[in-house]
Amino acid sequence: MDRRSFLRTSAIGGTAAAATSLAAPVYAQGKRTLTLVTTWGRGLAGVHDAAQRCADSITAMTDGQLTVDLKAAGELVGAFEVFDAVTSGQADMYHGADYYFVNQHPAYAYFTSVPFGMTAQELANWYYYAGGMELHDELGQIFGLKSFLGGNTGAQSGGWFTKEITGPEDFQGLKFRMPGLGGEALGKLGASVQNLPGAEVYQALASGAIDGTEWIGPWADEKAGFQEITKFYYTAGFHEPGAGLSLAMNRDVFDSLTPAQQKIYEIAAGEAHQNNLAQFLSNNGAALQRLQAGGVKVLEFSDSVWDAFGTASKETLDQYMGDDIFSRVRNSAEESMKASSNWITRSEGTYRTQRDRVLG
Amino acid sequence: MDRRSFLRTSAIGGTAAAATSLAAPVYAQGKRTLTLVTTWGRGLAGVHDAAQRCADSITAMTDGQLTVDLKAAGELVGAFEVFDAVTSGQADMYHGADYYFVNQHPAYAYFTSVPFGMTAQELANWYYYAGGMELHDELGQIFGLKSFLGGNTGAQSGGWFTKEITGPEDFQGLKFRMPGLGGEALGKLGASVQNLPGAEVYQALASGAIDGTEWIGPWADEKAGFQEITKFYYTAGFHEPGAGLSLAMNRDVFDSLTPAQQKIYEIAAGEAHQNNLAQFLSNNGAALQRLQAGGVKVLEFSDSVWDAFGTASKETLDQYMGDDIFSRVRNSAEESMKASSNWITRSEGTYRTQRDRVLG
Repeated sequence: MDRRSFLRTSAIGGTAAAATSLAAPVYAQGKRTLTLVTTWGRGLAGVHDAAQRCADSITAMTDGQLTVDLKAAGELVGAFEVFDAVTSGQADMYHGADYYFVNQHPAYAYFTSVPFGMTAQELANWYYYAGGMELHDELGQIFGLKSFLGGNTGAQSGGWFTKEITGPEDFQGLKFRMPGLGGEALGKLGASVQNLPGAEVYQALASGAIDGTEWIGPWADEKAGFQEITKFYYTAGFHEPGAGLSLAMNRDVFDSLTPAQQKIYEIAAGEAHQNNLAQFLSNNGAALQRLQAGGVKVLEFSDSVWDAFGTASKETLDQYMGDDIFSRVRNSAEESMKASSNWITRSEGTYRTQRDRVLG
Repeated sequence: MDRRSFLRTSAIGGTAAAATSLAAPVYAQGKRTLTLVTTWGRGLAGVHDAAQRCADSITAMTDGQLTVDLKAAGELVGAFEVFDAVTSGQADMYHGADYYFVNQHPAYAYFTSVPFGMTAQELANWYYYAGGMELHDELGQIFGLKSFLGGNTGAQSGGWFTKEITGPEDFQGLKFRMPGLGGEALGKLGASVQNLPGAEVYQALASGAIDGTEWIGPWADEKAGFQEITKFYYTAGFHEPGAGLSLAMNRDVFDSLTPAQQKIYEIAAGEAHQNNLAQFLSNNGAALQRLQAGGVKVLEFSDSVWDAFGTASKETLDQYMGDDIFSRVRNSAEESMKASSNWITRSEGTYRTQRDRVLG
């Protein structure tokens, strides 16, 4: 089927129906199938689940009037081709990490995660109540997308290495998989940074094409099987302290939906955003224990490594400040982060410290 | 209007329509108004907003086929009467803090917050992926409710006092507002604990009927105006480290909905759960600064006070362990909390510490 002609047809149908919507609801007039392409292989724990949850929620809430048909990476287009597929109308929607699309616009990095950026909760605070969503939409208007956050991995692990990292000099020449602006920062430490879709990482690591990789966290990493190849695992990372996943729709398709369907799309994404975070965080603890029991050495980077990460991250973000949208997005995000993080430290942070102390 | 007869009529209508749902969607056959009563005064920041968000989302996503009519505390029934109103069918839904209903069943405390219990994220991890939702539903089956989390305040402040708290003995004889099992624990320190709905707290504090109160956090507390009366504010508290708010529906009403409407109800609640948390946390930081600028003294409890909180909390929870559901809920929640908190400390916790250190 020619997706472009489907899009034109359905968009026109939607507009015509909208004109008579007072007489009868549009969604009673016929079912539409919306194709959702993703940046995730079908077997990737958590991230594929978030895409499927968005699809299933929309289908169920519209009683199938919008039936979302998920095509995982490679089933219709490749992982990194989803952006173009949706902006061109080849597909209706994508679910993915928007930092894969920093070449389209560097500001997209902020809607996944940037190095030394926001935690998952800080991202939500900014996105829903401090201007983030509006800036996401401003980017979407340029490219013809209507996007919402629709998943979150939480703070990502520092990653998998074949040897211990004792100082920043150990990144020199290291072939390492890390997307987005975090990867760009790591390049400033001398790493040879690769940007591979999730489904291709295991093979690259197994073949020696890369020396190490970050992926997500213990649960998703264990499912991906990296512990079969490498044994040095760093728990905390600088590069994605709370990675948002996006659900994006071709803007003409979005405009052709009824107001109720548009609201269903928005709320389905918002619900998946928090639900997915809970999925990752409820599974990570037990997975880390299993990894350790299986012989994985669990480590933390030293202060000198974190200092180098900090310098490289600032340099990376600074180099895009000539772009108007990037600078507004960065300033907005950092202002929100500063405003909300102090209270979180004083309330939940103090509580957690006291709980650990009192309960032992 | 007699709400009971309305309920019967609409439930019968729903059932009859469901039988013909293959021919035409139920929601095209007629609009229903569902009455949502709340435990919140209309002016209470954040908590009323969460209830309104649930109502608006359901109305919008069903294109008004379910129009949710919100009646704030006192507009149809009093704050603490909403549970009976919905179980009896006088109203269709309530939005409130389930720990107000520990007299109906003590296990309801876990679906808001218990002393030394879960943070907001830990609650979400447990609720959506470690059995919490199923246990909430088990309670709902006893009382004829279908409940989902539909809001969250985050970690609540220790509260407002007319003088500094230097040790646990300062709670002796203190007339203090604190609901739920946290309040019961505070009573073990000798406090005279009062359980007042939010809308009545300011007047009680102003009149001297109580010496102090906890409410939510800087933003909601500032809106409530407690800084006009007292000046000693403790940031972290033991009693509600991540208070969930519930959206509950009369189970007969829920059963009369179409599957699509049931899913809309569930997803609307889940979306409001995280969105509301972001609302509180995006506003608390700036509010705390304003409170400080206005002369409020911002403090933290000493270790000796936290130790006393810990002992009293354990005693409080232990005394309900003879109840089968309570003990299963507690064991499930604590197991999940332990499983997820260690990873959160190692990943996001380490990241936040390093970010503070590196960025200064």
